[in-house]
Amino acid sequence: MAIVVPADEMEAFLDEVFPQVKGMFGIDHLDDDRLIMRLHAGEQHLRPGGTVSGPAMFGLADVAAYVATMARIGKEALAVTTNCSIDFMRKPVAGADVIAEARVLKLGRALSVTDVLLFSEGQPEPVARATLTYSIPPKRSA
Amino acid sequence: MAIVVPADEMEAFLDEVFPQVKGMFGIDHLDDDRLIMRLHAGEQHLRPGGTVSGPAMFGLADVAAYVATMARIGKEALAVTTNCSIDFMRKPVAGADVIAEARVLKLGRALSVTDVLLFSEGQPEPVARATLTYSIPPKRSA
Amino acid sequence: MAIVVPADEMEAFLDEVFPQVKGMFGIDHLDDDRLIMRLHAGEQHLRPGGTVSGPAMFGLADVAAYVATMARIGKEALAVTTNCSIDFMRKPVAGADVIAEARVLKLGRALSVTDVLLFSEGQPEPVARATLTYSIPPKRSA
Amino acid sequence: MAIVVPADEMEAFLDEVFPQVKGMFGIDHLDDDRLIMRLHAGEQHLRPGGTVSGPAMFGLADVAAYVATMARIGKEALAVTTNCSIDFMRKPVAGADVIAEARVLKLGRALSVTDVLLFSEGQPEPVARATLTYSIPPKRSA
Repeated sequence: MAIVVPADEMEAFLDEVFPQVKGMFGIDHLDDDRLIMRLHAGEQHLRPGGTVSGPAMFGLADVAAYVATMARIGKEALAVTTNCSIDFMRKPVAGADVIAEARVLKLGRALSVTDVLLFSEGQPEPVARATLTYSIPPKRSA
Repeated sequence: MAIVVPADEMEAFLDEVFPQVKGMFGIDHLDDDRLIMRLHAGEQHLRPGGTVSGPAMFGLADVAAYVATMARIGKEALAVTTNCSIDFMRKPVAGADVIAEARVLKLGRALSVTDVLLFSEGQPEPVARATLTYSIPPKRSA
Repeated sequence: MAIVVPADEMEAFLDEVFPQVKGMFGIDHLDDDRLIMRLHAGEQHLRPGGTVSGPAMFGLADVAAYVATMARIGKEALAVTTNCSIDFMRKPVAGADVIAEARVLKLGRALSVTDVLLFSEGQPEPVARATLTYSIPPKRSA
Repeated sequence: MAIVVPADEMEAFLDEVFPQVKGMFGIDHLDDDRLIMRLHAGEQHLRPGGTVSGPAMFGLADVAAYVATMARIGKEALAVTTNCSIDFMRKPVAGADVIAEARVLKLGRALSVTDVLLFSEGQPEPVARATLTYSIPPKRSA
């Protein structure tokens, strides 16, 4: 599925629509097959022991599915999360950024489905996996 | 399933083990049937328009399932989230706290399963629902 | 949410659209709040030991969410399952029918979300819980 | 993760423990990375129009996760499904077998997590995806 909004434009768009999380996420890579995003782990995302919290990992998976979807349907569209299933499988490595690898499995007129694997940077085995459904409301006519 | 740790003790325990989220959550009610918790919606949990973000709702559902489980197995135990499925159904009301109503459906030796409904305070229809599984590792022998 | 198709009409409709499962499911009760359905457990739904299989329980949860949705939107509509999350919590009792208790949590223009608890008949604790999302395509114009 | 039970032995084991589904499923391929299984679509798995039903797809995903787990932990072990999240994304092709591609994401002492993609044979895009958690009870001592 072809990308219609490139990575740098998507990053600027994220900052614009979600000013509360400005600087929290970065796009490492975006092409027709997959998206790589990063959570810059800050103090507020950590749990005792220095590992990234569950809600922070959920937030990264959610924003990755959002970016992967919007990059294909265009910034003027709307998309809201309707469902997420997430499995936490391993404890993240303390002090490491969390990396998301996202693949869009379906892009329909009304729904997108995106698979996301989360890794502690530099580790081969995923710390979590998630699948997110976004609802894409019909475009409002001008 | 009988409560072995009362609400005020669970609140103090939360502050102790999760200092990063101190003051974010409150326990309104806890008995053998259900737990009511509250997210004190602050600036950092909001999205444009003043509605509570998805990760903040996930965080509330997660902490409610944790409290509901720990209040039954005791504070000396361990419990980690292994799975969450969450459906976002309605936009939260701007400026309202989000209220979680949690029920433990299963409390086994190795796993607990908790259902959580999330409401904007004062509204009859849920904004989201979630089910969370916690893994309960065997107690470490003394 | 008001029922527009009564129970006996929904049963006849099920037999008509899903002839392959004729006689497998029954509607015990249907009102604005909840739906009670039953799986008549037959040999082909059993696993060794006489307990109902996972796919048979999934099938019951799926048909209950379908009936709960269609009874509210009308038989001329379309609805297809897009997501199911299911937790298997206890072993069903051998030889007992499985009973589904379904509640529609959301009925939107494009999506419905239904919660289902499954019980072995006569037992107080659920054997499984499921949440199902149905996509409701726009009506075809005449 | 190394396979300790080869494909032909797993097929014989399936027939032995699940005689009710004998002949329904086949193992096309099994190695340390992935498992390919097949649902021999029969009349009882079909819906009007000749497409494979949701419960039949769930059953294939479930058995694939079971085989992928048991092939790594050995036939003398026990494993029961505790959670499944499944997204139905496209209508299966009428008359085609459904193929499951399974990968074990985590194999812990107490839980396994397996991702499964389902395809209509010969089609490039998945009809469904699922993630299944199996609980692995401690071995009974002799």
